[in-house]
Amino acid sequence: MQIGMVGLGRMGANLVRRLMHAGHDCVVFDINPDAVKELQREGATGASSLEDLVTRLDKPRAVWVMVPAGEITGKTVRDLAGHMEPDDVVIDGGNSYYQDDIARSKALSGSGIHYVDVGTSGGVWGLERGYCLMIGGPDQIVDRLRPVFEAIAPGVEVAPRTSGRDGTPAPSEHGYLHCGPAGAGHFVKMVHNGIEYGVMAAYAEGLNILKNANAGTASRQADAETAPLAQPEYYRYNIDLAEVAEVWRRGSVIGSWLLDLTAAALLRSPTLEEFSGRVSDSGEGRWTAVAAVEEGVPAPTLATALFSRLGSRDLDHFANQVLSAMRKGFGGHAERPAG
Amino acid sequence: MQIGMVGLGRMGANLVRRLMHAGHDCVVFDINPDAVKELQREGATGASSLEDLVTRLDKPRAVWVMVPAGEITGKTVRDLAGHMEPDDVVIDGGNSYYQDDIARSKALSGSGIHYVDVGTSGGVWGLERGYCLMIGGPDQIVDRLRPVFEAIAPGVEVAPRTSGRDGTPAPSEHGYLHCGPAGAGHFVKMVHNGIEYGVMAAYAEGLNILKNANAGTASRQADAETAPLAQPEYYRYNIDLAEVAEVWRRGSVIGSWLLDLTAAALLRSPTLEEFSGRVSDSGEGRWTAVAAVEEGVPAPTLATALFSRLGSRDLDHFANQVLSAMRKGFGGHAERPAG
Amino acid sequence: MQIGMVGLGRMGANLVRRLMHAGHDCVVFDINPDAVKELQREGATGASSLEDLVTRLDKPRAVWVMVPAGEITGKTVRDLAGHMEPDDVVIDGGNSYYQDDIARSKALSGSGIHYVDVGTSGGVWGLERGYCLMIGGPDQIVDRLRPVFEAIAPGVEVAPRTSGRDGTPAPSEHGYLHCGPAGAGHFVKMVHNGIEYGVMAAYAEGLNILKNANAGTASRQADAETAPLAQPEYYRYNIDLAEVAEVWRRGSVIGSWLLDLTAAALLRSPTLEEFSGRVSDSGEGRWTAVAAVEEGVPAPTLATALFSRLGSRDLDHFANQVLSAMRKGFGGHAERPAG
Amino acid sequence: MQIGMVGLGRMGANLVRRLMHAGHDCVVFDINPDAVKELQREGATGASSLEDLVTRLDKPRAVWVMVPAGEITGKTVRDLAGHMEPDDVVIDGGNSYYQDDIARSKALSGSGIHYVDVGTSGGVWGLERGYCLMIGGPDQIVDRLRPVFEAIAPGVEVAPRTSGRDGTPAPSEHGYLHCGPAGAGHFVKMVHNGIEYGVMAAYAEGLNILKNANAGTASRQADAETAPLAQPEYYRYNIDLAEVAEVWRRGSVIGSWLLDLTAAALLRSPTLEEFSGRVSDSGEGRWTAVAAVEEGVPAPTLATALFSRLGSRDLDHFANQVLSAMRKGFGGHAERPAG
Repeated sequence: MQIGMVGLGRMGANLVRRLMHAGHDCVVFDINPDAVKELQREGATGASSLEDLVTRLDKPRAVWVMVPAGEITGKTVRDLAGHMEPDDVVIDGGNSYYQDDIARSKALSGSGIHYVDVGTSGGVWGLERGYCLMIGGPDQIVDRLRPVFEAIAPGVEVAPRTSGRDGTPAPSEHGYLHCGPAGAGHFVKMVHNGIEYGVMAAYAEGLNILKNANAGTASRQADAETAPLAQPEYYRYNIDLAEVAEVWRRGSVIGSWLLDLTAAALLRSPTLEEFSGRVSDSGEGRWTAVAAVEEGVPAPTLATALFSRLGSRDLDHFANQVLSAMRKGFGGHAERPAG
Repeated sequence: MQIGMVGLGRMGANLVRRLMHAGHDCVVFDINPDAVKELQREGATGASSLEDLVTRLDKPRAVWVMVPAGEITGKTVRDLAGHMEPDDVVIDGGNSYYQDDIARSKALSGSGIHYVDVGTSGGVWGLERGYCLMIGGPDQIVDRLRPVFEAIAPGVEVAPRTSGRDGTPAPSEHGYLHCGPAGAGHFVKMVHNGIEYGVMAAYAEGLNILKNANAGTASRQADAETAPLAQPEYYRYNIDLAEVAEVWRRGSVIGSWLLDLTAAALLRSPTLEEFSGRVSDSGEGRWTAVAAVEEGVPAPTLATALFSRLGSRDLDHFANQVLSAMRKGFGGHAERPAG
Repeated sequence: MQIGMVGLGRMGANLVRRLMHAGHDCVVFDINPDAVKELQREGATGASSLEDLVTRLDKPRAVWVMVPAGEITGKTVRDLAGHMEPDDVVIDGGNSYYQDDIARSKALSGSGIHYVDVGTSGGVWGLERGYCLMIGGPDQIVDRLRPVFEAIAPGVEVAPRTSGRDGTPAPSEHGYLHCGPAGAGHFVKMVHNGIEYGVMAAYAEGLNILKNANAGTASRQADAETAPLAQPEYYRYNIDLAEVAEVWRRGSVIGSWLLDLTAAALLRSPTLEEFSGRVSDSGEGRWTAVAAVEEGVPAPTLATALFSRLGSRDLDHFANQVLSAMRKGFGGHAERPAG
Repeated sequence: MQIGMVGLGRMGANLVRRLMHAGHDCVVFDINPDAVKELQREGATGASSLEDLVTRLDKPRAVWVMVPAGEITGKTVRDLAGHMEPDDVVIDGGNSYYQDDIARSKALSGSGIHYVDVGTSGGVWGLERGYCLMIGGPDQIVDRLRPVFEAIAPGVEVAPRTSGRDGTPAPSEHGYLHCGPAGAGHFVKMVHNGIEYGVMAAYAEGLNILKNANAGTASRQADAETAPLAQPEYYRYNIDLAEVAEVWRRGSVIGSWLLDLTAAALLRSPTLEEFSGRVSDSGEGRWTAVAAVEEGVPAPTLATALFSRLGSRDLDHFANQVLSAMRKGFGGHAERPAG
């Protein structure tokens, strides 16, 4: 089928490539004309504006928006809808907050334009591995777009079948899922990313413990401020982290794709010195924590993982100064210098 | 080669099966004679006692001990060593605390008997998938046992090669790794399980948030004790968890073997009502937390995951009573009944 | 001066008593006529409706609203304002979400009615100890109400002067503080309660560790599911918790009013058996966690304390079932029964 | 009575001053002769060595050791005991690990020398406020030392009596408590400090949230890496933290001595710029976490507070690098520079 794509960054462009590869007809637009030209060379139809893109599509139209979350997505959806007609569909495939989806879906409903939200996981590997799609929107519109989702999703064969499943594979087995009404796709994607934070923190903390398994070989002064390592003889291992990550890839309980990537990263760079360790968070981890709080559901592990990321950017600096000020107040403890 | 196996529970028996399948000659013993007989029928040589097992092996001997951690393992290793001779090897393949390995290795060193510790991951699936092996001990003894480890480990082909690796596959790519001297194997296995706790908690908390995505459809009373759900319209999704777990298996960032198992469990039993949610912890999660503390390395996510398990068994009951007592003290707040 | 009070629950009634005791003239209303009568007997002027209350006050009026947060406060403020005139003041002294204050302040601004939000801490002890007041609103209106705040606050003498302060005591030294514009009072109160959760959890967890200091005297089975207590000889203390809480009240670094209350509670009931340990949360702890997330500021301790409360009400039940399901999946581990 | 003091640092010297003030006879020693001379000038008897100190005391002797925990305390106790006789008492008043007390008590038992462990809280303020004493050791020896403890402890009058207590004040109401046999004093002190970490973190995190209540006034870029602050209008408060800490000192639920100190620190230095925020930990916080793990009792809040301190010293640096490496691996996310 025919589909429009707005936003030709890495993910948008790769989505177009997967769609064209599956035989779909793509009309593409980006504010950067070079990005449009590149995909034109690969077979897409280029558009010079949102309006131009809409006119180049047959009705009922379907346009996938893949631009930064927040204001930019909001404006793009509104502008696009301004050129569209009843029964056309706008698909937000970015990292939107699901509450914005609910608002946008409602705002468009009067004009008869449909709104579908798609949480898209796969990162830079999606072109090769396919993208996992979590979809929210009205039943019949999601059904109409099924060929699009099938082209983008990884497909049944990339994982062994789950024990207990038989017959025709369900859409989830292709790698896409209609999760519920407006916002449901981004809600599930949000929780997916919240889990991602927790899983990543688990590996990162564990590897840090292994890296410091030689703590007993370093000399450590005894003073009133720091407890001596009681039994240094138990912490004298020099562990090869790249090899450990590799061995866990086969047969272990904690095998995962994130571990595969970690094994490759540690092989290239055993000390990871090219990374400063200031870790961004792109919204979904925060939203997941807020959702847990609002639902009244404990998520201590996920929240702790989020807060560790914030701490990696020194956002706890003042809190730590307060601790030092208290310690000086009650105990006269001076701070110890770094190193 | 020839190898003895002491302890024919699920894991010990399956190790024997993998060893025999690879052409090794196994002499087996268990305090339960039926377990011995079953493996005899499958081709193993049965022994009637530890001493009998030792006498049935050619020198230098290698005996794998696969019995419950702690006292039982300690006693078995001591008893076994009492029948062995210099250059023989005892392998502890159970879930021992690595500090016990250091002690046992030292205790045996006078007699010339070697000690090798092996952390074994794979669970009930190891027979089919192979076991991931993390090994501690002296270089030449670990080298001598290489055919044993290769037979037990999953093998190179079960995972795609890590980008950047070439030439002859390293042992880690077979699924076994010599991590360092005595205790190093169980140290790495300990951290592996600590990570496992964190990864599991991440999935569990995330799925719980999804399950409660319909919190806004339940009616909730407003009173001085409980904040009303400010915007119930944002929590009105009924999410099919089995389908979500399934869709995440393909293309998503959080794909893993634990997720595969979760997808199967939720398919069989969407509400998991056969589980009470009292979650055991088998030691390594605790030891990992202690190691982090002793090394002085933050592990807030892993520790939180551990404490959530302890909390699942109501080990925070008195702490919660203290909170209620304080709230009554300062605010006159009565506890609200369950439900 | 003259002041109206709407809502004569425990806190509202005690505020009236402190105000009358300081010589102020109170006009009071509650939907429960008995509550009105009781305060009339103590010297207040009773009103039969919001409208009646407004008519009994001289202009410019000041009415303190002390009713449950959320919808009820919102409606009361709106109804009240419907009877008021420009330059009158509505004071919300309850546990409102500060974002609601911002909305209400804005909604009233067109009518010339002022809005002041007051976070009030002190619980059932406020009549005796005075209430700590955190205030948001326009400068000159907060100034106008100064006599009211002085009457309600504890007063300078209840705490020794902070080192470095001299001259005329600041309002904060009386126990009330104008924190900023609309919502600032409830924002500071919100964080106050967030801190309260953390402080309470610290005491509760610590006392639980002391209570279990005899863990080594209980017999504990060794099996594959549970690690044995490695050194039971280190956990054989029977600690008298009421005495410990008492001794910490004098000279220790952790002395506090919450500890004072805990000492009294443990004296009355050493095992706290009258409490089930299901701990409510009244909103501010959740809002604090959300504020931390939205500001991007780590609050792992406060969030963990909140989630422990949620866990005390079994809101992590499904998450724990998921953990059990995974453990059965990879390890064949059956759940161990309670007890 | 007569008592020896070994170690005349700030705490040891102030203990001597409180003892002399109460009329006790003190014989003092320190490796620094100036410290001895200073207390001689104030009325103490100086000693030139441990042996000299012992000979200057009447039998049965009591010597309080107040030197850095760990090796130094262990050696001092051993050396001292070498000069002592049956029925003499060594008191360890430092921050020893309670398991070391159990070992030392056992080591001395053969020689008939008694061992008493005392956890001492009060910091630099103890001279003025008195010290809270948590004591472990044999009943009759602790009884014998009662005059010493009474002189050091704050005394009954420094806190209002707990509701429900009457008659002669218990020792705990004087500010000292015999908690149990050897090690019990330091066990309770350990948990005291664990709680201290949690309480301090609660204040520190809360104040950090208040400090960042103006997050909505800063401009923040929207990009794929960082979620925009959805509603900046809710984070536009400039809160005066010194005033907030002050107001909480009167009437609020979270009043405490740590808050008093914080109020003074923020008054002196509103931005605390003289502190770098690298927070030491002196052992007891770690030991408390380990005790919780070994008892199998959840302490997520206390452990999180500990790990935040470790994180303040960048001990999570490698873990954060791992996170960045993973994010680059799956999403091509480059780290964002500081600032």
